[in-house]
Amino acid sequence: MLSGRLQRLQQSLPTNRLDCFLVGHAPNVRYLTSFTGTAGVLVVGERDSAFFTDGRYTEQARQQVRDVRVVIARKPPLLAAAEWLEKRRRSAKTVVGIESGHVSVADHSRLAKLLSKNIRLKAAPPLIEKARMVKDARELELIRNAVLLAANLFPSILNTVRPGVKEIEVAAELEYAARKAGAEGMSFETIIASGPRSALPHGRAANEAVPDHGFVVCDFGVILAGYCSDMTRTLYVGDVSNDARQLYSAVRDAQEAAIAAVRPGIPVGEVDRAARKVLTRAGLGRFFTHSTGHGVGLEIHEPPRIAAGQSEMLQPGMVITIEPGAYVPGKWGVRIEDMVVVTETGCEVLTPTTKEMICI
Amino acid sequence: MLSGRLQRLQQSLPTNRLDCFLVGHAPNVRYLTSFTGTAGVLVVGERDSAFFTDGRYTEQARQQVRDVRVVIARKPPLLAAAEWLEKRRRSAKTVVGIESGHVSVADHSRLAKLLSKNIRLKAAPPLIEKARMVKDARELELIRNAVLLAANLFPSILNTVRPGVKEIEVAAELEYAARKAGAEGMSFETIIASGPRSALPHGRAANEAVPDHGFVVCDFGVILAGYCSDMTRTLYVGDVSNDARQLYSAVRDAQEAAIAAVRPGIPVGEVDRAARKVLTRAGLGRFFTHSTGHGVGLEIHEPPRIAAGQSEMLQPGMVITIEPGAYVPGKWGVRIEDMVVVTETGCEVLTPTTKEMICI
Repeated sequence: MLSGRLQRLQQSLPTNRLDCFLVGHAPNVRYLTSFTGTAGVLVVGERDSAFFTDGRYTEQARQQVRDVRVVIARKPPLLAAAEWLEKRRRSAKTVVGIESGHVSVADHSRLAKLLSKNIRLKAAPPLIEKARMVKDARELELIRNAVLLAANLFPSILNTVRPGVKEIEVAAELEYAARKAGAEGMSFETIIASGPRSALPHGRAANEAVPDHGFVVCDFGVILAGYCSDMTRTLYVGDVSNDARQLYSAVRDAQEAAIAAVRPGIPVGEVDRAARKVLTRAGLGRFFTHSTGHGVGLEIHEPPRIAAGQSEMLQPGMVITIEPGAYVPGKWGVRIEDMVVVTETGCEVLTPTTKEMICI
Repeated sequence: MLSGRLQRLQQSLPTNRLDCFLVGHAPNVRYLTSFTGTAGVLVVGERDSAFFTDGRYTEQARQQVRDVRVVIARKPPLLAAAEWLEKRRRSAKTVVGIESGHVSVADHSRLAKLLSKNIRLKAAPPLIEKARMVKDARELELIRNAVLLAANLFPSILNTVRPGVKEIEVAAELEYAARKAGAEGMSFETIIASGPRSALPHGRAANEAVPDHGFVVCDFGVILAGYCSDMTRTLYVGDVSNDARQLYSAVRDAQEAAIAAVRPGIPVGEVDRAARKVLTRAGLGRFFTHSTGHGVGLEIHEPPRIAAGQSEMLQPGMVITIEPGAYVPGKWGVRIEDMVVVTETGCEVLTPTTKEMICI
């Protein structure tokens, strides 16, 4: 008895003119089988399916993979899967879909060499990523838990950010609190970027002290039961100038405008546009140097991308970040980020943390 | 003025019948340019080179990438690099090497569509990975620092592992101590696998209590200045049976036999064989279900693989792990792991931690 997710994939094979689908991207494998290891390949066929892993995962695969036959291979799982395909083919021609965004050119050549000419490898559409974009009720529950766990860590940041404290010390306290609260890990390298470093959108916590005035961008997330969370708040240390308040307000307005734009049936590019419009009117358009957001789930970055020109339509159940920012090189930067779930009529903001400007 | 690493790559292009090399794998980009971001593509040509990244990394790229022209692209860096290649080609035919182990089939198609027929994409040999296998003096210093930082965390484990304490609490204390000591992060998800879970070679710290007797496999590492470390020690909780002592001794003997086998000029498969021979004689061969080790550097797993049948020759300056283990499903498991550097005459063990059986 296959899981609903596997069954749906299986049923979609004929429409996509595939006889089989070869799945090796770990989050896709996990989505379909519950396997949490890093080396596993699933072959989904119209009639039969099988899962290949190596000796390190013998026990784990038997515990986790319930509805597909598990094969422990002595060779790399991808090659074991290819041999299995080679043996089982019955009809004259078999079309095997591959995850073209994840299979390397080298692995593709290796596969092609192993398979006889009757088996054709075909770049398949991202069927599993498409399915994963829309979260089911259980996934939403797990995502809510991950979001709330991270939000509950925010006071730890407020307690540690002080002039003279190193950014990595702030990260240390935050990550310790995360682990104590049960997180499996952080969903990406914690960003604590203070003073002029706040102008680096990806300023990972460094061995540098928080200066006595300026913004501190804090961007972090946890993994809980496999699901990721992602949030950003920007604090201000020291006496706040009007300039600083204006920058903060503009980013906050942009973030709220983008949230207001989220509803089913509109292209994601519209959400990006809503944020960009506000920042452009405030004269900050050229300082908003990244896209507005991204999907979150088993991966910290997954489709859809909330960016200019992207045409993917929002659907109820999609979980995305809304995280515009403005970064003045050498001076400072601000980013504010929530996770939201698209509902039937608009969206629900999952991140409960205040967006008021907090000064320390 | 190009760095020595970039120059050597440039000089090796003609021998490999390449006019250019397109480098996008982040650790390779970092190795050649010092860029630490996640989105960057370097084009190395015989005459000119250029580095492409996106707006998030404008400041960071200018700070870090000193000897190559930096282009901030509005499109994905890979595509920007392709357009640059298309514009600059002078001769009738240009052969562009790609990292076939890292470029996806989808990206390969995108590239091929952008480039005119005079530019041919060719799966290049892993020139940069080959160079990275042998560490220079500065790299060895950084690796030593990462190994010592992790080894200094081991007492934190001894202080926290107790019956009833959860595995993730042990990991929390360990990772907190790592951050406090200046680590940028852990080099992989910390493994704390206690009781029957010690039989899972990749048993990441779980929300489960350490039982009142049995082995606890502790496998962890840190990242410091970009370089990874990796070590495993296995503790015993409770009164030790003779069986447990015998298993521990056999794994330790195997580990030491493998270390004794490490010297320049022998194929890495010999090192694996030395460990496997000891465990097989002890009747434990079938419980040693993984390979003996792997290279470590900017990545936690990098070439060479220390596995059966691998023919790569050991060379002075290679840094590898030696980590045999034996896992009896449902019962228990032991693994002991050091990092070693190949010297002119043999090897030096970098990990200073005792391998005596520690009982708690």
